[in-house]
Amino acid sequence: MGYQRPRAEAAMRGMKAEGGWAVVCNQETEIHPTSDLSPFAEGRLWDDRDIPGLRLMTDAIHEHGSLAGIELAHNGSHAPNLLTRAPALAPSDSIIDAGFAPQARAMDKEDIRNLRRWHRDAARRSIEAGFDIIYVYAGHHMTIPHHFLLPQHNDRMDEYGGSLENRVRLTRELLEDTLELAEGKCGVAFRFAIDEVQGADGMQAEEEGRGVVELLAELPDLWDVNVADWPNDSQTTRFQPEDGYQTKYLEMVKQITSKPVVGVGRFTSPDMMASLVRKGVLDMIGAARPSISDPFLPKKIEDGRVDEIRECIGCNICVSADSQGVPIRCTQNPTMGEEWRRGWHPEKIAAKGTEEAALVVGSGPAGLECAMQLARRGYHVTLAEAGKELGGRVRREAGLTGLAAWSRVMDYRLGDLQQRGNVDIFTDSPLGRDEVLELGVPNVFLATGARWRRDGQGRTARFGIEIADDAMVLTPDDVMDGIRPGNGPLVIYDDDHGYLGGVLATHLADLGHDVTFVTSANMVSPFTELTLEQGRVQKSLLERDVQIITAQAVDRIETEVCQLSCMYTGRASRLDCGSALLVTRRDRVTRLFDDLRGHADLNKVELIGDAAAPGLIADAVYSGHRAARNFERLPEEVEQDYYRREITALEG
Amino acid sequence: MGYQRPRAEAAMRGMKAEGGWAVVCNQETEIHPTSDLSPFAEGRLWDDRDIPGLRLMTDAIHEHGSLAGIELAHNGSHAPNLLTRAPALAPSDSIIDAGFAPQARAMDKEDIRNLRRWHRDAARRSIEAGFDIIYVYAGHHMTIPHHFLLPQHNDRMDEYGGSLENRVRLTRELLEDTLELAEGKCGVAFRFAIDEVQGADGMQAEEEGRGVVELLAELPDLWDVNVADWPNDSQTTRFQPEDGYQTKYLEMVKQITSKPVVGVGRFTSPDMMASLVRKGVLDMIGAARPSISDPFLPKKIEDGRVDEIRECIGCNICVSADSQGVPIRCTQNPTMGEEWRRGWHPEKIAAKGTEEAALVVGSGPAGLECAMQLARRGYHVTLAEAGKELGGRVRREAGLTGLAAWSRVMDYRLGDLQQRGNVDIFTDSPLGRDEVLELGVPNVFLATGARWRRDGQGRTARFGIEIADDAMVLTPDDVMDGIRPGNGPLVIYDDDHGYLGGVLATHLADLGHDVTFVTSANMVSPFTELTLEQGRVQKSLLERDVQIITAQAVDRIETEVCQLSCMYTGRASRLDCGSALLVTRRDRVTRLFDDLRGHADLNKVELIGDAAAPGLIADAVYSGHRAARNFERLPEEVEQDYYRREITALEG
Repeated sequence: MGYQRPRAEAAMRGMKAEGGWAVVCNQETEIHPTSDLSPFAEGRLWDDRDIPGLRLMTDAIHEHGSLAGIELAHNGSHAPNLLTRAPALAPSDSIIDAGFAPQARAMDKEDIRNLRRWHRDAARRSIEAGFDIIYVYAGHHMTIPHHFLLPQHNDRMDEYGGSLENRVRLTRELLEDTLELAEGKCGVAFRFAIDEVQGADGMQAEEEGRGVVELLAELPDLWDVNVADWPNDSQTTRFQPEDGYQTKYLEMVKQITSKPVVGVGRFTSPDMMASLVRKGVLDMIGAARPSISDPFLPKKIEDGRVDEIRECIGCNICVSADSQGVPIRCTQNPTMGEEWRRGWHPEKIAAKGTEEAALVVGSGPAGLECAMQLARRGYHVTLAEAGKELGGRVRREAGLTGLAAWSRVMDYRLGDLQQRGNVDIFTDSPLGRDEVLELGVPNVFLATGARWRRDGQGRTARFGIEIADDAMVLTPDDVMDGIRPGNGPLVIYDDDHGYLGGVLATHLADLGHDVTFVTSANMVSPFTELTLEQGRVQKSLLERDVQIITAQAVDRIETEVCQLSCMYTGRASRLDCGSALLVTRRDRVTRLFDDLRGHADLNKVELIGDAAAPGLIADAVYSGHRAARNFERLPEEVEQDYYRREITALEG
Repeated sequence: MGYQRPRAEAAMRGMKAEGGWAVVCNQETEIHPTSDLSPFAEGRLWDDRDIPGLRLMTDAIHEHGSLAGIELAHNGSHAPNLLTRAPALAPSDSIIDAGFAPQARAMDKEDIRNLRRWHRDAARRSIEAGFDIIYVYAGHHMTIPHHFLLPQHNDRMDEYGGSLENRVRLTRELLEDTLELAEGKCGVAFRFAIDEVQGADGMQAEEEGRGVVELLAELPDLWDVNVADWPNDSQTTRFQPEDGYQTKYLEMVKQITSKPVVGVGRFTSPDMMASLVRKGVLDMIGAARPSISDPFLPKKIEDGRVDEIRECIGCNICVSADSQGVPIRCTQNPTMGEEWRRGWHPEKIAAKGTEEAALVVGSGPAGLECAMQLARRGYHVTLAEAGKELGGRVRREAGLTGLAAWSRVMDYRLGDLQQRGNVDIFTDSPLGRDEVLELGVPNVFLATGARWRRDGQGRTARFGIEIADDAMVLTPDDVMDGIRPGNGPLVIYDDDHGYLGGVLATHLADLGHDVTFVTSANMVSPFTELTLEQGRVQKSLLERDVQIITAQAVDRIETEVCQLSCMYTGRASRLDCGSALLVTRRDRVTRLFDDLRGHADLNKVELIGDAAAPGLIADAVYSGHRAARNFERLPEEVEQDYYRREITALEG
């Protein structure tokens, strides 16, 4: 949300406070025009004009009795300053690591004095804006204090470079400045990446990481400890299924300082959280993603409703929104980011209107979410699944290498639905037009999903590709149905550029197939750049000896061979190919919709999820949720929702 | 600027009107939440709340007697709707071609009726906002009407698909609707991409392109004709040095319609413009980039000051800002985008204060711009260049394959400086501390530039790479100095990811070297994606049989061989290497600054351009311009400039 959407930000943060989080922090907050992350809208506190927007947030947090924290940051050589065109600053001359922008210059003593002044000014404004905890931020390779700590960023010869004590100096000064200004009226936290997860090539928790903690042990009021960089901090379950995976880096901090320590690591298990506090590893449990997935996690623990927690699946769709510069979203929690705009509450939904019953066809993520929310509203819900098992694409994809945790999307919703008296669930129940009409339920939501195309139509070949009659061609659906490629080399052609092509390559390589991965993109699974996974995705294929061929399209599949063409030059080449798996694009399954639409006996027939628009699981859940919320609302009212937005002031 | 910065947008467009452009159009303007290009801030006219912001623009344009045009667009499957999460629309089910988002669905008849209604509503609001010309937009592969025209997007079986007449139907309806609404009070223009520049694989001007013109010939009040897609429309001089390169596609339009025709093609030559109008090819000259580079181009033609025109160099830095989602900038015109925020006028600058003279050291882009603006302000300017020739990096880079037009940055400024009586220019004049002090000029601007590193330090290797004593290693500066690689394979290592590595590869391949291009990125010159050039860059290397090795770092350079490691796995490999050219990062040249800084005899010593922060030529020009503007201003005032910005309203 950031500074571009202050009211949406306030409502979202306030919702976390309502959910019981004792402290609600905002995102990193730029303290000066030389720390300009445009076009990304993070927090911004450049001058007094930014105070009123942030005040909305602290008010919303305080309303529920929680404390508000602000993560003051100067992003140094991580800030391209593309809006301000201000000079970029760093301990030593260096390239900007985010986007393309003029290099950062080594800070001289005046720059350091200025930085301290800007940080003090921002701390003063934070207090004015009502914050209770002010951060000094040395994490994620994203801020100047962190850059000063690290020899790879800092080759200074003065008292701010060289020994660890010297490299810590700036952080110490910022902490001292902030503490002085806070006058004990608000807390000063230190966010510190104790390990770079690069082994001896970077800071290690047991070496210099410990050293930093020892040097600053009693200075901050609170230690907030994690690891760098962001892809290591916010790992996905695909590559790090473990709950609390950062604990091993943090364990020694509490032994060194007497100040409270908070840490993160995608905690989703209340038992583990409690055990870590009991064992004295941490004093407080920190969470970003788990609090996005379930803002009411603390309240549910407090109330003993642990099985109602909507657990984070670790997919980083939240991060992907940040990467794309758009408002936050969440796979598990479709209300995330909609608190202000649509007035959605994760735990509350309007009671039903005059209609009594609804039929939901299809039990994938859209169908399950829609059925669950309709049931919460009080309708009698019939959920019909054509297949033997519930869960649709979630169940199918969760069976692939690395995606097991995604089944939580299904488990949470089935757990809820199965406890309700107003829900009938049927499997093995394919419905046609006549069966639907016989049921006599006048409101029908069709979550009939999508199927991967077999003809190669996708981003590149809009008319499909030539395929010989006797060529063995598979789709992702075939693989998820258990069909295996034949003998000989398997060519996976990814023209979709999402996550699935890479997942299937890993999965099939693990099953022993000789995989060649051909993609029209310049890398494997470019979508996964947005989720911080791309490095690990491509590495995992290379480590399985999958041959990777980038920037090539598959034009023709013949017996035992396929023909490629270079995306740049069009030059053709040939590749051995025992069977081909085509990951190109999906077709919506809409036959039942087409047969039912406009029927006089039906009050409502609506497509939801992939059947409406093939997308992410997050999109399907959102679609099902929205349909349930909008049921029995006036169409004009529904349309009007799209227009609620924050716009630029024309004065001031 | 777009809807996020309405005041900046209004001031920028108003400046073009002041410069004499008869019609000033805005950028493509979203007409509905289903056409949401977030995070990119283009025009937006979703509802009445967007009118006041656009009214600022039309007022600013009308103030100078020009007409204001609005380019209404529904972006269909080019709109990812990441903010609104509204359904995406297209003639046929299709992938979203911009970013990752749920697929677009085929529009049914109700969708088409809705689209027409939205377009009418937007046209009505355009009139309320004061626009004189309303566009129907079928161009760039970016709008629904264009998608309907093209068989690759439209496989409909109804009256909107199939024959050309059917595919034109939606465009015809939108034109008719808009004309009806305009009631002759404002003009209706049709922007049409007459050729896809894909040969027989796409629409061709002489085939269906002509057919569209024939079918709609007399319907719009104005034909605005160009080519698709955007990289073909906005070609750079690197790949298309020709002025007016689109004319060959447009020539037949005027023979078919009696309505006026406007066209584009980076027109910079007034003679060619006049000749095209005289020959009846076009009625009006359209320009985007030439009007960015010189908003006063029409006035200068009118006044007979043709040699004062600041000609577009065709570098697409303007486009790169759009690609990055930040305000527009321009290499040639550093005031572009600063009209509101800094109050900069491209043709006006404040007269000097109490100081009389300034010394500028270095005649690269920063030095030339700074010297020229200081001279305009009335200072006596001494410009000292250490080398034999003026122009610095502009002269040097313009000598490389494809970059000849970039010398306009130098030519324009030298042409200006050489006509002024208050400027002394010296070449062959390296200055040290003592020489500067002897000159007795108390105000010194140091544009001493930057040099490419020889040790491999860059994005990847922060401590540099291992290089054997007898290995032949070159830098870009060496090549621009005329030094040639030795025998054997030349390995170019690009860890900079800017344009220069790819340019040097082309240049040296053309000189007959056997080039292998190694890059730590996933493609050649990723920066050039922002300038719409990346496809052509990589293709040009492949067509020269340059071997491309992506996602590999150079770790060590030995005699005749270098050692690479995979960016993903770290796996090592070896590569034959007669000589290596390292394009990693630059070092600022600051010795003179270090020697002079704080000297009691000097009033001011300031680093500008690459010596302050190595960046683009655009950054250097901007830096020189800013320094000249800020000279003799109070530091507090200068600092305050950074805070002038547009922020989100908290109410309404």
